[in-house]
Amino acid sequence: MFYIIGLGLCDEQDVTVRGLNAIKNSSRVYLEAYTSILMVEKGRLESFYGREIILADRDVVETQSDEILHNADKEDVCLLVVGDPFGATTHTDIILRARALKIPTRVIHNASIINAVGASGLQLYNFGQTVSLVFFTETWKPDSFYDRVKENADLGLHTLVLLDIKVKEQSEENLARGRKIYEPPRYMSIPQAVSQLIEIESIRQTGTLAPESTLAIALSRVGGGDDNQRIVAGTLAELSQQPPEIYGQPLHSLVIVGKRLHHLEVEYAEDFAVNKEKWREVASKVYGCALD
Amino acid sequence: MFYIIGLGLCDEQDVTVRGLNAIKNSSRVYLEAYTSILMVEKGRLESFYGREIILADRDVVETQSDEILHNADKEDVCLLVVGDPFGATTHTDIILRARALKIPTRVIHNASIINAVGASGLQLYNFGQTVSLVFFTETWKPDSFYDRVKENADLGLHTLVLLDIKVKEQSEENLARGRKIYEPPRYMSIPQAVSQLIEIESIRQTGTLAPESTLAIALSRVGGGDDNQRIVAGTLAELSQQPPEIYGQPLHSLVIVGKRLHHLEVEYAEDFAVNKEKWREVASKVYGCALD
Repeated sequence: MFYIIGLGLCDEQDVTVRGLNAIKNSSRVYLEAYTSILMVEKGRLESFYGREIILADRDVVETQSDEILHNADKEDVCLLVVGDPFGATTHTDIILRARALKIPTRVIHNASIINAVGASGLQLYNFGQTVSLVFFTETWKPDSFYDRVKENADLGLHTLVLLDIKVKEQSEENLARGRKIYEPPRYMSIPQAVSQLIEIESIRQTGTLAPESTLAIALSRVGGGDDNQRIVAGTLAELSQQPPEIYGQPLHSLVIVGKRLHHLEVEYAEDFAVNKEKWREVASKVYGCALD
Repeated sequence: MFYIIGLGLCDEQDVTVRGLNAIKNSSRVYLEAYTSILMVEKGRLESFYGREIILADRDVVETQSDEILHNADKEDVCLLVVGDPFGATTHTDIILRARALKIPTRVIHNASIINAVGASGLQLYNFGQTVSLVFFTETWKPDSFYDRVKENADLGLHTLVLLDIKVKEQSEENLARGRKIYEPPRYMSIPQAVSQLIEIESIRQTGTLAPESTLAIALSRVGGGDDNQRIVAGTLAELSQQPPEIYGQPLHSLVIVGKRLHHLEVEYAEDFAVNKEKWREVASKVYGCALD
């Protein structure tokens, strides 16, 4: 059996009991290590699971999946994925490949940011499509995310913005010279994300992401307990002015709040607000939310 | 500490290790028993957890939450929820109440249908807002869901449709006489859901849910393994014509496929299609998907 097992969001204890049993019974255990990160080191996972873990980067999962699937019709093999297995396209690829090889497959689900974003207090059924925000460079500032956010905003829906991760990146020089030397991993932070949003708003000027009148909620290490999880709410302008350390460690995610905002959502998230008065004022005056 | 713990989607083994430890250390364990169901009996959970479970119905969680929260500042108490804790509004209510009472709270996340719907092969970032479909009666056929599906469809997005559950319902007679006698639980099935969708389409006639040209994917017991999980894909017309038993046991959910459909999504879900040729034909001709 080939298992794809979601590890959840935080650390070794977020695996499900079903997932843990499958890991313990597997002859090979791979960890997908490029679309997201856990908050713990590989060694801690290994000692918790009692198994050696083989790191699988993008090359391995996308182009050498037969290596992972080798013998999985005769023994149990598993691929561990941070969050839920269906967060990234590449896992449907490897399942399609397993199907073609007639290898039985089982997916073991877990929490991902897609549903754990409910921790912000915003209702999941009020979210529109999810968007990704990539690192801008001097010459490359892809802004198609803006159209998606606007589509959601025009319907009054919230948007979950997933922030870019760069793992196993090569510098231009190393790439040109064919040297397999990799840059340290980079994770987009809330301040950088908000600054990119405001930059595109200043070009597009539709008001969709107007800094003073757009509410947003920043999340980091959701599910990580009070020592780890951070949720910060405010206008985009407010979020851009906070000291970076209030957002805690990566990974960070951001929600752009839509106009179909319910007073219970405002009340719940108020606890996370940089400035509670401002939060309620914008919710009431700009968003038209009826508050007490 | 007051814990709200997601149990995931299937059975006792879908709890996370962190969740299981919290349950074992709690002096009281409540199970929320009205917005969703697990596929196993309470007794099986009790013997797996080694704890007695107190069933908490809507009344208890919504209006008597102080009973659940009693002493939670001094000892550990937990409320178990099928799926993830942020699937239903009522759990933000009880967290707000705990906050007011200054009781420390921790949420332990898990998979819910909101992210596990990725098992259909449809990409999660291509989903718009989620809608709920309630049981129609002769005189009450609420159809605001249709506007939401159309909003998504107009943007080319998929829609997850959650099907109604009736638990602890009283008959009109018992209600009138104040008798606390409850009807057996009812779970909306795919055939009934599809028939309701087609009924509203026949009134609205915008083509959003045209039976012959709208693709949909039915899911039941997602994450439940091959013996339990069922995924069936086809046009709404095809899904309405299948024998009910192919959809398996409740809970059922339904996805209305949006036009921003990617060929990989088509290819992945083809395996679940009632009629593979028809599936590809509609995807290609109606949805404009470029297939091999």
